Amino acid sequence: MGLLIVGSIGLDDIETPFDKIQNALGGSTTYISLAASYFTGPVSIVGVVGDDFPKEHIKMLEDHDIILDGLQIVDGAKTFRYGCKYHYDLNNRESLFTHLNVFENFNPIIPEKNKKDKFVILGNIAPKLQMNVLDQLDNPKFVVCDTMNFWIDGAYKDLLEVLKRVDVLIINDSEARLLSKEPNLIKSAKIISAMGPKYLIIKKGEHGALLFGEDTVFSAPAYPMENIFDPTGAGDAFAGGFTGYLHKNMDLSFNNLKRAVIYGSIMASFCVEKFSTKGLEDLSFLEIKNRFIEFRELSNFD
Amino acid sequence: MGLLIVGSIGLDDIETPFDKIQNALGGSTTYISLAASYFTGPVSIVGVVGDDFPKEHIKMLEDHDIILDGLQIVDGAKTFRYGCKYHYDLNNRESLFTHLNVFENFNPIIPEKNKKDKFVILGNIAPKLQMNVLDQLDNPKFVVCDTMNFWIDGAYKDLLEVLKRVDVLIINDSEARLLSKEPNLIKSAKIISAMGPKYLIIKKGEHGALLFGEDTVFSAPAYPMENIFDPTGAGDAFAGGFTGYLHKNMDLSFNNLKRAVIYGSIMASFCVEKFSTKGLEDLSFLEIKNRFIEFRELSNFD
Repeated sequence: MGLLIVGSIGLDDIETPFDKIQNALGGSTTYISLAASYFTGPVSIVGVVGDDFPKEHIKMLEDHDIILDGLQIVDGAKTFRYGCKYHYDLNNRESLFTHLNVFENFNPIIPEKNKKDKFVILGNIAPKLQMNVLDQLDNPKFVVCDTMNFWIDGAYKDLLEVLKRVDVLIINDSEARLLSKEPNLIKSAKIISAMGPKYLIIKKGEHGALLFGEDTVFSAPAYPMENIFDPTGAGDAFAGGFTGYLHKNMDLSFNNLKRAVIYGSIMASFCVEKFSTKGLEDLSFLEIKNRFIEFRELSNFD
Repeated sequence: MGLLIVGSIGLDDIETPFDKIQNALGGSTTYISLAASYFTGPVSIVGVVGDDFPKEHIKMLEDHDIILDGLQIVDGAKTFRYGCKYHYDLNNRESLFTHLNVFENFNPIIPEKNKKDKFVILGNIAPKLQMNVLDQLDNPKFVVCDTMNFWIDGAYKDLLEVLKRVDVLIINDSEARLLSKEPNLIKSAKIISAMGPKYLIIKKGEHGALLFGEDTVFSAPAYPMENIFDPTGAGDAFAGGFTGYLHKNMDLSFNNLKRAVIYGSIMASFCVEKFSTKGLEDLSFLEIKNRFIEFRELSNFD
């Protein structure tokens, strides 16, 4: 009954108005698994890197009790690399380069002992690969899925097939509008829910997130931040915190999903406070709990 | 101890993607006073119209127990007229015409018996006029102020003087950024609070509103709406609901200000469901209360 995460692992060059970093640990799986690791276990990942992938990153993930049996390390191949630059408002990211390298032929192979994992997060990879993962699993109970404009535009039919088998789809507002072809987010949510997902989460960056269930909506605020250092990985940290919290207590009621959305928002807020995965590498239970209390102050009224 | 509202009263031509209307009742004072009238009394307005102002509007305001002693009706003059057009996304308004008419020389004269009113809402008029109103009052306890880009750009120094005497400033996110010259809303709020207002409310349209107090923030969600019929007056309805609720129970604690922000959001949500002031003309206590409960479901978690 573990939590399985499948997606990309890479090395990023990131430039923001404040600083820049090269060869930093990146990839959806990395952020998701780190965020989830603070809530639950066992957390296992499936991904691929080349033999240039620094051993220190392996150690750091292992130090967070993340199980790496499904991590393929391909001899003589290079790790996925991505470069991007954020401009002043930090909302728009300019891609500088994408070297797929070993990720180009990624074929996720689920280790035998993970096939019975009941919670699965499908990171932002090709819908065909997401489907491939689901086909290898033995009746998962709770499937969380991310996607992006690139797949909505380029692999729409495949994505629709995946959505039929998904419990929670987590996307941002522009992706929701693109997927539903509807500008109003409330209408958009209804259209997307009819595609299959039992729950839909629409992330709105500095405006928080919306959780849609059947005839129910929850609006989570964003944590008030004066300084966002590096937005990379925020959405993945959200997915990891959200699903990790649910896996911890196995309560899938709407009330608990609300709390999980808050824990997702908390992990995203820690993520953007530092470069790369640094904001998710050294958190205490108390820091996370205190931020939950801050979110309650921010959001609740009687 | 009444609630006094000073601002514009006009006749609007409004065109949306769904319909259009001509000579509809408009103006900040109108929307504010109608929204406030559901919570408290006595509600008095100060404003000016020409002798072309339809009697039916006078009657409708009186039917809501709004006291019109401060309404100047100028013989032989025309009422302020405004025309605008909303495009498909309803966020951007295109002004078609502005005929100031009698409003051009508006000189707000506060009736003797209103000079002791303790709650005042300064609608969106020239800061010099807002100051003129404050100068006529006998020590108001709670001053709520609205403004807009036009005055921030064109009457910045006058506005700064007004802000020193204001308890709550209510503006939207683009106005906050313009006033503070700071893109980050949290930093922006600190800069504006240092200008004088004890509390600041930043309205974010479909993303809700933020209430800033000293070292405290409250994030209110927007009511999930599939159909926004006419956004005109939403911000004024917010100010009226917010202040009317506070005037009703005279509790100025931060916890009660949170509730007041929700009641402001509720009145804004009713406002945009119909053309002009129609959405605010025939509401029941139960409808308002039920929407408050919906807001709690939408926002609260434990």
